Amino acid sequence: MRQDQSGTSHGQGELVLLARIRQRAAGTASKGQKSGLRLGIGDDCALLAPRAGEELAVTTDLSIAGSHFRLDWHTPEAIGHRSLARGLSDLAAMGARPVAAFLSLGIPRSLAAASSRSAGARNWVERFLDGFLALAEACNTPLAGGDLAESTVVVADIVLIGAVPRGRALLRSGARQGDLLYVTGALGGAAAGLAWLAELASTAHHKPPRIPKKLEALLAPHLYPHPRIAQGLRLQRRGLASAAIDLSDGLSTDLAHLCEESGVAAEIDADSLPIHPAATLDQALNGGEDYELLFTAPSAARVPHSIAGVPVTRIGRILKARKGRPAITLITQQGRQHIEPQGWEHFR
Amino acid sequence: MRQDQSGTSHGQGELVLLARIRQRAAGTASKGQKSGLRLGIGDDCALLAPRAGEELAVTTDLSIAGSHFRLDWHTPEAIGHRSLARGLSDLAAMGARPVAAFLSLGIPRSLAAASSRSAGARNWVERFLDGFLALAEACNTPLAGGDLAESTVVVADIVLIGAVPRGRALLRSGARQGDLLYVTGALGGAAAGLAWLAELASTAHHKPPRIPKKLEALLAPHLYPHPRIAQGLRLQRRGLASAAIDLSDGLSTDLAHLCEESGVAAEIDADSLPIHPAATLDQALNGGEDYELLFTAPSAARVPHSIAGVPVTRIGRILKARKGRPAITLITQQGRQHIEPQGWEHFR
Repeated sequence: MRQDQSGTSHGQGELVLLARIRQRAAGTASKGQKSGLRLGIGDDCALLAPRAGEELAVTTDLSIAGSHFRLDWHTPEAIGHRSLARGLSDLAAMGARPVAAFLSLGIPRSLAAASSRSAGARNWVERFLDGFLALAEACNTPLAGGDLAESTVVVADIVLIGAVPRGRALLRSGARQGDLLYVTGALGGAAAGLAWLAELASTAHHKPPRIPKKLEALLAPHLYPHPRIAQGLRLQRRGLASAAIDLSDGLSTDLAHLCEESGVAAEIDADSLPIHPAATLDQALNGGEDYELLFTAPSAARVPHSIAGVPVTRIGRILKARKGRPAITLITQQGRQHIEPQGWEHFR
Repeated sequence: MRQDQSGTSHGQGELVLLARIRQRAAGTASKGQKSGLRLGIGDDCALLAPRAGEELAVTTDLSIAGSHFRLDWHTPEAIGHRSLARGLSDLAAMGARPVAAFLSLGIPRSLAAASSRSAGARNWVERFLDGFLALAEACNTPLAGGDLAESTVVVADIVLIGAVPRGRALLRSGARQGDLLYVTGALGGAAAGLAWLAELASTAHHKPPRIPKKLEALLAPHLYPHPRIAQGLRLQRRGLASAAIDLSDGLSTDLAHLCEESGVAAEIDADSLPIHPAATLDQALNGGEDYELLFTAPSAARVPHSIAGVPVTRIGRILKARKGRPAITLITQQGRQHIEPQGWEHFR
């Protein structure tokens, strides 16, 4: 549908923007040769050559202004980082190594325009790419393609492709009665950070709020989450985990997904939860966007106390699913209580 | 960013919608086992196992209401078909066989709601899937995953993954001086159809216009384009083409891309162009969205006059690129003229 827009020149055209993205993506190409990317941006498709015996893991994550981020709360760098982190976290949950990322970006004309106010200022797309490519670089993930379009609302759909030895991917469906339940890192930090950000933003009058130095560490789990690629790879290579999922929607929701796919129930020891120092129990259970890994392992497995510098905490166990018994039970000093998935759901 | 929306129940929640999409996608799973899809919707990633000696082709295509389609012009079925056709056409241009499709869909709350006015009416998402899955089925492409989110504007990002024997993909960069230039099917039909649609819509007051039976054939190239998967595969398997690209932005623009990537120039014989009966020369040259294949072959190659029922027409030849000489020349009875890429460009 290409009829209702004027052909007048304004700011940067698509081809100029694409050339710029291609140029910046080329900086990640050295990662590509190692990862299996044979042909990146510039043709109708990218070409990926997995190694012998590998299969490919594919995930897409759609981030939309107003639902996943706000232009008046989040810097372009944080939006770029967070969009990519969601997809990388899905690869981590499968125990896959990243092969390539693809970025479909829809933006308003104003954000595509060159920053004209001051010569040194970089436009929104460049700053988005700063955040995106810094994380891509840190996770050895070349940007291999994507699409660019005009949109009234900012949308970023990220595709991540990873590789894993055939039949060795960590699945949601492998948890068995008697397995123990583990989580990496700390829980609730992202939700606590978001609550701080909302408070700061409420005084900032629709500009990205200035973040005081002493609050940066508190906001980091929300603004710059670390996908647990190294931890997922270690679990997969050592054959330690029977099932895994990443905590994107919140522990209560993602554990329910794992239980459903595995046909089991679970119980959590509230006292053992690695709650982020700034977070509440509720944020740890239901906050979402921590991008930690939740995994199960047979009780005989020797699960380390930390993997690649990130703590691993045992938080509960897997039970047999019984009709009429709730899937997830929380054990506190006050007793046992059923918990419902309270995490994020669109259209609810 | 999951704080600023109410948790009240309204219409179908995300999980209900996702379950419905998963159920419908399962109908394409039998295609999946043949294509190489090992694990579809339901885990953090889908898993694909290419055959020995194959590499994977990956493309993403972002379609946004207002830029690529209009809700008051296009039925949900046509939007679903067209979104998928764009990606399949990119696979065709590489000579790849489809392995799996992924769909990231952002929609307003109102379109996610169940149709309540009449019991038999199907909601927007179901009708979008009707169009999407009918084409997926016709092209043996299982729907393997994706994402779903709330958005003020309808966005559909489609990822297509295909497979091609290693080193055998058709590239934009392979055209050489002396090669001949070919195109499948007819040109300009999509642009002519869009012009008819715009005329019909101008009297329809923001409802999808009623399409008179006798106009259906005229609108089909715009509403329901056929990606040339079979033709691309045949060219690749027979080793006939030296370079290929699909006509998404228009002949003048896409041929310029091919020339640029190959480092060559080209000339087109206007009289030989297979212009769609309803289209003008301008629509054939610059209209875009025909999703035919444009390819080159050495002059000694025996290129058939039709492939899998679709005509193949020789339209010109590849020349050496010379500094100062325009990349594309059009030869008419009036003489030779340089043509500029006039196809679609966002933000221009």
